[in-house]
Amino acid sequence: MSTDRNADGIDKPVAVDAERLRSDLERNAEFGAIDAEEGRGRTVLTGTEPNRRARDYLVDRLEDAGLSVSVDAVGNVVGTWTPDSADPDSAPVAAGSHLDSVPEGGIFDGPLGVYAALEAVRMLQESDVEPARPVAVVSFTEEEGTRFAGGMLGSSVATGHRSVEDALAVTDDEGTTLEDALAEIGYRGEGRLEADQWDGFLELHVEQDTRLEERGIPVGVVSTITGIVHATARFVGEADHAGTTAMADRTDALAAASEFVLDIERAGREFAMDGRDGETETGTAVATVGKSHVTPNATNVVPGAVELGVDLRDVEAATMDRLLERARRCLARLEADRGVETDLEVELEVEPAPMSERCREAVAAGADAAGVDSLSMHSGAAHDAMYVSRVTDAGMLFAPSEDGLSHTPREWTDWADCATAARVLGEAIARLAGE
Amino acid sequence: MSTDRNADGIDKPVAVDAERLRSDLERNAEFGAIDAEEGRGRTVLTGTEPNRRARDYLVDRLEDAGLSVSVDAVGNVVGTWTPDSADPDSAPVAAGSHLDSVPEGGIFDGPLGVYAALEAVRMLQESDVEPARPVAVVSFTEEEGTRFAGGMLGSSVATGHRSVEDALAVTDDEGTTLEDALAEIGYRGEGRLEADQWDGFLELHVEQDTRLEERGIPVGVVSTITGIVHATARFVGEADHAGTTAMADRTDALAAASEFVLDIERAGREFAMDGRDGETETGTAVATVGKSHVTPNATNVVPGAVELGVDLRDVEAATMDRLLERARRCLARLEADRGVETDLEVELEVEPAPMSERCREAVAAGADAAGVDSLSMHSGAAHDAMYVSRVTDAGMLFAPSEDGLSHTPREWTDWADCATAARVLGEAIARLAGE
Repeated sequence: MSTDRNADGIDKPVAVDAERLRSDLERNAEFGAIDAEEGRGRTVLTGTEPNRRARDYLVDRLEDAGLSVSVDAVGNVVGTWTPDSADPDSAPVAAGSHLDSVPEGGIFDGPLGVYAALEAVRMLQESDVEPARPVAVVSFTEEEGTRFAGGMLGSSVATGHRSVEDALAVTDDEGTTLEDALAEIGYRGEGRLEADQWDGFLELHVEQDTRLEERGIPVGVVSTITGIVHATARFVGEADHAGTTAMADRTDALAAASEFVLDIERAGREFAMDGRDGETETGTAVATVGKSHVTPNATNVVPGAVELGVDLRDVEAATMDRLLERARRCLARLEADRGVETDLEVELEVEPAPMSERCREAVAAGADAAGVDSLSMHSGAAHDAMYVSRVTDAGMLFAPSEDGLSHTPREWTDWADCATAARVLGEAIARLAGE
Repeated sequence: MSTDRNADGIDKPVAVDAERLRSDLERNAEFGAIDAEEGRGRTVLTGTEPNRRARDYLVDRLEDAGLSVSVDAVGNVVGTWTPDSADPDSAPVAAGSHLDSVPEGGIFDGPLGVYAALEAVRMLQESDVEPARPVAVVSFTEEEGTRFAGGMLGSSVATGHRSVEDALAVTDDEGTTLEDALAEIGYRGEGRLEADQWDGFLELHVEQDTRLEERGIPVGVVSTITGIVHATARFVGEADHAGTTAMADRTDALAAASEFVLDIERAGREFAMDGRDGETETGTAVATVGKSHVTPNATNVVPGAVELGVDLRDVEAATMDRLLERARRCLARLEADRGVETDLEVELEVEPAPMSERCREAVAAGADAAGVDSLSMHSGAAHDAMYVSRVTDAGMLFAPSEDGLSHTPREWTDWADCATAARVLGEAIARLAGE
């Protein structure tokens, strides 16, 4: 409980019920729970029975707290609290994240942001804070993109980046549409959640890195969500008998691709040396070849073709351009040196998303009010806040991840850190929602 | 028709019936024939219906020529001709190859060696040659190793390298044993073909390279069948989020594996520069990484583990040792430099197999008798003759491969070259079988 008068002039105490938050997160962790050798995991894919149960539980908890719940056409769930103090026609402040997981993922990635937003609303309800705006708790559909391709599907629709029709028509590997999958679990709602009608949006998420843990700081204030390029690099050589084809007569697609893998790694290392945010961190650039498919992929055949999945990220658009240019130059050199044919197909290109000044200040002030240190830092992962930041003021805060692990049952955030982050989120919402 | 008196003193003419050989090869090409965009292909896996039909046709043709046919426990088929001139108890001279194919393979790889051996017997029967030994036509089971692992399965059993029991228990991907597959098509025979009881063995095969074609020479006399090592190189790093894991914090298994791929290529190139057989060729060493499996293999995850399939070959055992040592040193360096864990598991290690002097001379003399040039050359591919050479005198001859292609429907050898090679094989058999 804080009684300090803070920068925004809010002096009402905001209490956090750490047990209530933990209870919600632990209940949510039961849906799709898996037997993990170590840690605590779950598999909650969009439109499955575990997803239905997780959604039902959330809706119950939102209604228990007196929020008015709606579900849009792509299954985004919103619970709105309109306090007596608020003008019901004013633009709400929203906060939330997602409930779906990767296969055998952790229990915090997503749910922490949803249930901390709910806990923040309950804290505000129990405090003397009198928000001037409604507060909305949001759970976006299919953030992970595990079952239905792309990722951040719900927020892409809520921000007009993708149409409802397009999204509903997306199919999983079995050919089931998102529309049918949502209808199956009773979450194919109506209309479209309109994020541009929000006054602002905050997303709390686990950091998925060790910067907070290493410094012993409980809250990260996200400066920018990294830009991302996903591309496929293709190399076509000539498949030949590995025994009868002399070294000089080969056009080995895997050897060419291996030079590319190493050049991409080298580029990432070089660009990561360019420190840009001297105050808090350097090395935001990363460059990865994560995926490789060799044809025909037989030990005794010189590889005829290789496809590589390339992931390039940085918080500066200029760096992203330079990374892509570097990849293209490397391919041109390999064509000249090795006689392979190459191709680079960019499948996803997302600009870096700076968080709004107002939201960053609200989170930092919230941390001050809660009496904890905070650290300004970029997000190397994409989040729903990325799309939301294109249409309204958006901010993100991070809670520490033990050993930086995520997308594994070993993902962990201490319950005390969850409560602290929820508290800071509540303080920040109070500031954005005004009095 | 040759009437020249040749080096071994055989002056009987040996006639080749090019049309009869072509007819057999074209009939055999119908079994398992596929629709190929270009060329002429077939898929004949051991123990399948096309394999049964191909075997039945061979048995018929062997019997039509008056040969006595037997099938051993692992399905090796042998037709023996015991001319009146021969001592029926003397060790026979054998010749042959295999009828199975890779998926969508060509029509010459294997069958040419079987039907040329049959044609050679028919030529001898129609000539005035009076062999002092029986002549056996052999078709080995599962040379390609496509359905039942390993390759050269029939010859490995016939030479005592592998036991009948072990071979019969080998399973395909569906769990079917070789024994059941052979029984299904009626070719699970009795006993074991004993190659060590042969006086000698000759195998005609397509070259699968362009050395004959480039020089316009119709027959290759194999000096040595290359040694082969197949190994799996494993790299274990740490799977991490490609967005949130700084370049400096990674242990990228694919980047490490890429260095290895390039070092293996470099080693192959360096060792291929060591010319050993100045008269005919240099560069018999080859080193290939043909197979790669990345885990978890997702664009946005730093690769945690990689397995590579490595193929090392040379005609000199010392070079094979140096290639393996080079691979091991590279792995040790990567452990030190990159912090990955590595492992090299050698799954197949076959010594180079020099062909016997007597067989090489018989083939070269056969080419002289046929009035065609021949070229001494190594075999970069493994063949059944490799196992046979461990237990008796063995030799191989090559027919030209158009563009060096094999294991594809575009594999081709001119019918005239097939006839010439069969003629040379017949002359060589006549020399080995004596008078």
